[in-house]
Amino acid sequence: MVESGQGRDPGDYGLLSPVWAGTRVAELTSDVAFLQAMLDVELGWVRVQGHAGLLEAALVEPMAHAFTAGAYDAASVAARAQHGGNPLIPLLGDVRAALAGSAPEGVAAVHRGATSQDIVDSALMLMSRRAVAVIGADLRTAGQALAALADDHRGTLMAARTLTQHSLPSTFGLKAAQWLAAVGEAGERLDAAAAALPLQWGGAAGTMAALTGLAQQQAADDGGPLAWASLLAETLGLAEPVAPWHTNRLPVTGLAHALADVVAAAGKVANDVLLLGRPEIAEVSEPPAAGRGVSSAMPQKRNPVLSVLIRSAALAAPGHLVQLQAAAGAAVDERPDGSWQAEWQALRQLLRLAGGAAAKLAELVSGLQVHPEALAANLRLSGEPLLSERIMNTVAPLLDGGSPGAGRQRVQALVSASLAGGPDLVAAVRDAVPQDLLSDQDLAMLVDPAGYLGQNDALIDRIIDRYGQGERA
Amino acid sequence: MVESGQGRDPGDYGLLSPVWAGTRVAELTSDVAFLQAMLDVELGWVRVQGHAGLLEAALVEPMAHAFTAGAYDAASVAARAQHGGNPLIPLLGDVRAALAGSAPEGVAAVHRGATSQDIVDSALMLMSRRAVAVIGADLRTAGQALAALADDHRGTLMAARTLTQHSLPSTFGLKAAQWLAAVGEAGERLDAAAAALPLQWGGAAGTMAALTGLAQQQAADDGGPLAWASLLAETLGLAEPVAPWHTNRLPVTGLAHALADVVAAAGKVANDVLLLGRPEIAEVSEPPAAGRGVSSAMPQKRNPVLSVLIRSAALAAPGHLVQLQAAAGAAVDERPDGSWQAEWQALRQLLRLAGGAAAKLAELVSGLQVHPEALAANLRLSGEPLLSERIMNTVAPLLDGGSPGAGRQRVQALVSASLAGGPDLVAAVRDAVPQDLLSDQDLAMLVDPAGYLGQNDALIDRIIDRYGQGERA
Amino acid sequence: MVESGQGRDPGDYGLLSPVWAGTRVAELTSDVAFLQAMLDVELGWVRVQGHAGLLEAALVEPMAHAFTAGAYDAASVAARAQHGGNPLIPLLGDVRAALAGSAPEGVAAVHRGATSQDIVDSALMLMSRRAVAVIGADLRTAGQALAALADDHRGTLMAARTLTQHSLPSTFGLKAAQWLAAVGEAGERLDAAAAALPLQWGGAAGTMAALTGLAQQQAADDGGPLAWASLLAETLGLAEPVAPWHTNRLPVTGLAHALADVVAAAGKVANDVLLLGRPEIAEVSEPPAAGRGVSSAMPQKRNPVLSVLIRSAALAAPGHLVQLQAAAGAAVDERPDGSWQAEWQALRQLLRLAGGAAAKLAELVSGLQVHPEALAANLRLSGEPLLSERIMNTVAPLLDGGSPGAGRQRVQALVSASLAGGPDLVAAVRDAVPQDLLSDQDLAMLVDPAGYLGQNDALIDRIIDRYGQGERA
Amino acid sequence: MVESGQGRDPGDYGLLSPVWAGTRVAELTSDVAFLQAMLDVELGWVRVQGHAGLLEAALVEPMAHAFTAGAYDAASVAARAQHGGNPLIPLLGDVRAALAGSAPEGVAAVHRGATSQDIVDSALMLMSRRAVAVIGADLRTAGQALAALADDHRGTLMAARTLTQHSLPSTFGLKAAQWLAAVGEAGERLDAAAAALPLQWGGAAGTMAALTGLAQQQAADDGGPLAWASLLAETLGLAEPVAPWHTNRLPVTGLAHALADVVAAAGKVANDVLLLGRPEIAEVSEPPAAGRGVSSAMPQKRNPVLSVLIRSAALAAPGHLVQLQAAAGAAVDERPDGSWQAEWQALRQLLRLAGGAAAKLAELVSGLQVHPEALAANLRLSGEPLLSERIMNTVAPLLDGGSPGAGRQRVQALVSASLAGGPDLVAAVRDAVPQDLLSDQDLAMLVDPAGYLGQNDALIDRIIDRYGQGERA
Repeated sequence: MVESGQGRDPGDYGLLSPVWAGTRVAELTSDVAFLQAMLDVELGWVRVQGHAGLLEAALVEPMAHAFTAGAYDAASVAARAQHGGNPLIPLLGDVRAALAGSAPEGVAAVHRGATSQDIVDSALMLMSRRAVAVIGADLRTAGQALAALADDHRGTLMAARTLTQHSLPSTFGLKAAQWLAAVGEAGERLDAAAAALPLQWGGAAGTMAALTGLAQQQAADDGGPLAWASLLAETLGLAEPVAPWHTNRLPVTGLAHALADVVAAAGKVANDVLLLGRPEIAEVSEPPAAGRGVSSAMPQKRNPVLSVLIRSAALAAPGHLVQLQAAAGAAVDERPDGSWQAEWQALRQLLRLAGGAAAKLAELVSGLQVHPEALAANLRLSGEPLLSERIMNTVAPLLDGGSPGAGRQRVQALVSASLAGGPDLVAAVRDAVPQDLLSDQDLAMLVDPAGYLGQNDALIDRIIDRYGQGERA
Repeated sequence: MVESGQGRDPGDYGLLSPVWAGTRVAELTSDVAFLQAMLDVELGWVRVQGHAGLLEAALVEPMAHAFTAGAYDAASVAARAQHGGNPLIPLLGDVRAALAGSAPEGVAAVHRGATSQDIVDSALMLMSRRAVAVIGADLRTAGQALAALADDHRGTLMAARTLTQHSLPSTFGLKAAQWLAAVGEAGERLDAAAAALPLQWGGAAGTMAALTGLAQQQAADDGGPLAWASLLAETLGLAEPVAPWHTNRLPVTGLAHALADVVAAAGKVANDVLLLGRPEIAEVSEPPAAGRGVSSAMPQKRNPVLSVLIRSAALAAPGHLVQLQAAAGAAVDERPDGSWQAEWQALRQLLRLAGGAAAKLAELVSGLQVHPEALAANLRLSGEPLLSERIMNTVAPLLDGGSPGAGRQRVQALVSASLAGGPDLVAAVRDAVPQDLLSDQDLAMLVDPAGYLGQNDALIDRIIDRYGQGERA
Repeated sequence: MVESGQGRDPGDYGLLSPVWAGTRVAELTSDVAFLQAMLDVELGWVRVQGHAGLLEAALVEPMAHAFTAGAYDAASVAARAQHGGNPLIPLLGDVRAALAGSAPEGVAAVHRGATSQDIVDSALMLMSRRAVAVIGADLRTAGQALAALADDHRGTLMAARTLTQHSLPSTFGLKAAQWLAAVGEAGERLDAAAAALPLQWGGAAGTMAALTGLAQQQAADDGGPLAWASLLAETLGLAEPVAPWHTNRLPVTGLAHALADVVAAAGKVANDVLLLGRPEIAEVSEPPAAGRGVSSAMPQKRNPVLSVLIRSAALAAPGHLVQLQAAAGAAVDERPDGSWQAEWQALRQLLRLAGGAAAKLAELVSGLQVHPEALAANLRLSGEPLLSERIMNTVAPLLDGGSPGAGRQRVQALVSASLAGGPDLVAAVRDAVPQDLLSDQDLAMLVDPAGYLGQNDALIDRIIDRYGQGERA
Repeated sequence: MVESGQGRDPGDYGLLSPVWAGTRVAELTSDVAFLQAMLDVELGWVRVQGHAGLLEAALVEPMAHAFTAGAYDAASVAARAQHGGNPLIPLLGDVRAALAGSAPEGVAAVHRGATSQDIVDSALMLMSRRAVAVIGADLRTAGQALAALADDHRGTLMAARTLTQHSLPSTFGLKAAQWLAAVGEAGERLDAAAAALPLQWGGAAGTMAALTGLAQQQAADDGGPLAWASLLAETLGLAEPVAPWHTNRLPVTGLAHALADVVAAAGKVANDVLLLGRPEIAEVSEPPAAGRGVSSAMPQKRNPVLSVLIRSAALAAPGHLVQLQAAAGAAVDERPDGSWQAEWQALRQLLRLAGGAAAKLAELVSGLQVHPEALAANLRLSGEPLLSERIMNTVAPLLDGGSPGAGRQRVQALVSASLAGGPDLVAAVRDAVPQDLLSDQDLAMLVDPAGYLGQNDALIDRIIDRYGQGERA
């Protein structure tokens, strides 16, 4: 077989990752986007030098054209990155070459006093901040839809299920509220992580030595390197770090934890939708869209593609987190010999998985179709035994005959007999308990699922109050 | 070969986990400790019932004897746990049996309105809180020792190393400060996670249905189930949750993230100590202790056992985190069918790894031996080329001859020639630069490592201010 | 709250791991069992010395009493292991002390020429071999039951499900056969891994230097160290390695891979049983057993505990594999400084998870209850559209009217209309296709699920032939 | 800050993954390469239909033009893949459109009887086989270089190191041989995995129902679907499976295990080179290459980039393996709802990491610079105590004075005194042992490292015999 046609286009477009292919976050984390982020950091530093009098101010803006990613060949930079072990080195050569003709006086200011890790780490944070803004917006959209679902369906009865089996009556509203609790909490964690994304600025060994030398040369009176770092952080919209974090990778793990939680929270929703949307259960359906969910072989099928893809992210994300956590624990020296490099792709993939999961989640819950009649029908499947906890707690004391525990045993026997095909549970209770202890009306109320919802409304309200409103609305 | 002697004692004592065997955290997370935590939750609920008038107050304390772990056989409970899929069910049977003779009137109050997951989850949180208190204390001890190392050695010169190679001069004090930055940050994250550990209290399906029924029976006027949950949380020292979190596992991942970061921060220290303590480098030594680090075969060896064990934890911890994160993303229904069960052991192991790592870290850094002469000797290994960044930045502009970049190329050539065995770098610079541009004295100062430490002191101060003082001191 | 009663018994009994607590594999991998394995290796070497004339033969058997685990305190050995970083060192001290009184002439032969890693690694392999034998037996039991299910139910119709939706008719027999294919393959991989478990024997640095010195002293003419290693491997029932593998950890990863596959194969079965056993689907039930699956709160529930626990193992196992794979890739020197130590507990836990999963699987599939009527009822849920692939392939060509593709479009329209509540698909086809192209009888056959099972029987036969018979029977 | 220039080129080129960017394996696993693999499978099936008489033979080759990846837009296919959840569906639409004009009679044969998973899975296997061929060749190159290093340096003395400390004399040749043992074993496992990569062929539900229908229509007498599958497997160079493996993912995990082992084996080499190449140790250097290892800030630096990148792969690979193993254990139904989709990217990344690691490894060990004088100098650092095991074993018996163990205690005291700065060990032994028991010459030989290499040569030979020759040479 001829293996023709390969290798012409070496690019990846997410062909094997449909959960995030084609999304806005994919675009914000592409190779070109990362090139741009590195260029933004370098240009930011040039501008700070202009502000600080380290570079003639008039020189700055004429240099800006050399800091747009479109001017460079991402594939070439990527291939050359292996020589120095990071993508900044070849890019820097290209930038300097671009400036040599057009703005030669400014070349020396480019990357002055910085080291590759300053740029790469800061660019990772910058790229992350941009992606996280989109993810956060999608989570807020999802949160609003979930709050509405929770409120709308607070009276929509369904069977709660534990360990796959029916346990008690509940409502679809409470289920949606619980989804909201997790999605909202993940969103808050992500917001906190986003606000903490720090600039990396330390120079070759994290001491800011070259910057300090520069300050001495320039007799800078504006506070020097630490002040410049502060200004650069502000320029880029990143947090000012306590100190360089070249080998303290907790800024990276902190972000990764939040992203992984976003995926997990979305994953729980998807798992439930996949289950509840099975034909035998049929309690919910994914929002239909033209062409979505079609099968290559079976014309009758509509696959729950949004949930399938979210779930694929939930299965993949922990494997990216583990790389970042392992890398943090493998750090050594003032720049790690492999663990630093291992972080880049893992962090990007985690951003993409969270981005894809959040986007798909927002679409899923915004258009989720809920089928109350199916929810009710399935609830009825279990019949009165679904209320057996309540029957036990109410009826057993009436049957104790003075002997604690005896009542429980009798009720247990009635339930078992009923499940084994014996007498109907309600009839059996009726037989066992005198009318004066339990009227027919009370018995009927006892086995009404709608009367055994506990704190359903209060819990929904608490969750909506906490995660569904205020600035997120 | 006869396989004799096996199976008499089915217990594990950490034989294969020397990093945590024998530690206080191991004790606080043993099977017996978890039994006790479950019993504490159940007894806490009995007491809350007493306060709330759901149980005659005089009945409460006579029941307490049945809630001490010593009264039960952990191995038997463990073996029986497989029938119901969790350890609470057999324990509850044992507790009820214990009370049947001594306090029969109280039996019905035990576990009333609760479900297994309420008890198991709350007990996990309670066990975690106890273990985390010890871990936090060890981190504070470590932090104080690191702050002292950072301050004491702010003038102790050493070579900074990036990608294994010497990069620039730095100080051991800054290295210790960077260790502190990570350990301190991890400690803060752990404190925050500890404060958020929530009670689980929702009943069979997370609706508080049975509790609500109880409130109706008792015409309770104290707020009912949510107020009782609040009181129980306070009694147990746990946070009050917004709602039950039976299938929203972010409380678990939040703790796991902090624990994994503790191990990673400790791991970085251990990696450095292992490296710097190698005989060819010999810049630090582990604190000696009788019998520690001996070899079974080589009488001359002293192995850096503390660091080896911390590093073993850093390699193991991500594998436990991945289980917890995967479990959170696999949750379904109102109680997950396997992912919930997978959390228990993973969380315990992560507590133990963090506990062992923190304890060993506190001992390691409290007694770490630093060898300034070796640090200085290794720094000299690289000679003046270690200052080549500074030479480049200072000398290149003097050699530009009006052509930007030309100076950089000449200095690069001098460095390369020197590294290739050619002329000494300082002599070469002397030859290339006229005295009036660079005096002999200036040249000497230029290659003095002590003069090229950048913001060493300021960074150390910033880190100590942030992480080394205040309430942690 | 008093935290009383803790710490009296520091042992773990699997309280938080019900999937393996109380199993035979748990017993074979307990701390005491590992003590015994280390002692077995040490005694094996004493015996080999006796055979090789390195030790007076009459001295050997009187020493044997000191090599039974029952003679030592596992908890104490575990606590002391942290000093040297491994459990062999304190155990060796105890053994020598035990022999000092009773067999002093033999003391020098104990551990002669060996290093801790020789014993610990060989003991891990020995412990693994013992555990794997039990796991393999459980897999064979499961395999036989699965082969029987596959054969018995080759005609039991059910809906095949892809991406949660009904796709085509299939049989429960084929599902069981597919379970068998995975379980059987995992079993074969485990058998291969078990046969390859190698002795570790290299001395302090993997050169066999001390052993070679011993051979020179004794003028041994029996081949010396390599021959002794061969004999020791045979004595212990381990494979003879090409060379010591102190830092080549592929023997460990090889075993870990097979164990992880066992858990994954069992996990697939559990996932299916959990799904098919839901009350809305109800196609299978777990084998009932007294007390199994009871709920602490809901008397009517029967939880599918076997499958829940297997699934918990499937979620946990990858996290142990990741530790072992990371440890292998982190190895350095002639004995790794942390990654070796990280392997021990991870490997043991993986053995236990595989052991628990295999034991529960054997029980699950040996007694699985299959409900043909429910399988058939669910199949009918989808009606004729479930055959739409067949209708498409058969009918479309009849409607092409000479224009390829036109037929497909017409059938697609009929299916869509039917799903949208329009005319019944069969009636619509009847209307569209003339009788002479498709008789009523042919049309009826066309929508009979039993007639569209493809290679159902051949595939079942192929799988049973490959994995269900021969030596496994 | 304007976020300009982003999103123009959505492609990834490995910018954040320098270990594999620009390699041949990257090319063989690009999105375009995967498109091509899917097209190869579809075209293979068209050809098999031609051979089997299911399609007029003359129609086949005129269709071939539509099966070259260059004809399609990978980015567009990727973006459209989210609708159906896999990339085959939009590609198939494009292929059919391409054929509609040029070869309409053949359109119906495309994908006939197949399902998306048949194509995607088979294409993954095909892509894997192509990548694995390159990886295997690199491993063989590395193996040959390692065998040469092992043989050449069998007499090059160095210190063996255990737990970071010097333990005994060894040789660089044995170290290289041990690298070979792991690399060779990983290569063998990879070869075995490559040979087992199976075709996926089962149709919509794994029953081959549509294919069977086709056979019935055609009255095919060539064996039908199973025979066609066999022929297709042969055509594509894949193994014929026992049965479809839509939800039995052990074929995927089997490959993943081998790939992870390749990375781990390479990682061990890299870890050692990174350590031994540190300036204080300086026993080896990476092969120099123009522009490799340069720093953006420090002109004197040469970073060990090959090893750094290999190590980054060793840290990342387990995180991809864990996804695949988790996916296998999460499978359900006849096509999994998320775990199948999660495999694609994880498997590709693992192929790339193994590909990058193997390529870099081959380059690294083929040109590795070994510095015998530094190896010898470091060996001398430890002085005679490095031979203390030998001194112990030889001298202790001479000092027993009839009391076993007494000699060991005396020698241990001499070693300790020497290490504590006391008398030189050799002098102390000379003082303690009479000349008639140990001559001066014997004592000198006793502390000669070259005389204490144990089975160095035999072990090197065994490893080369096993892994360094035969078909791999």
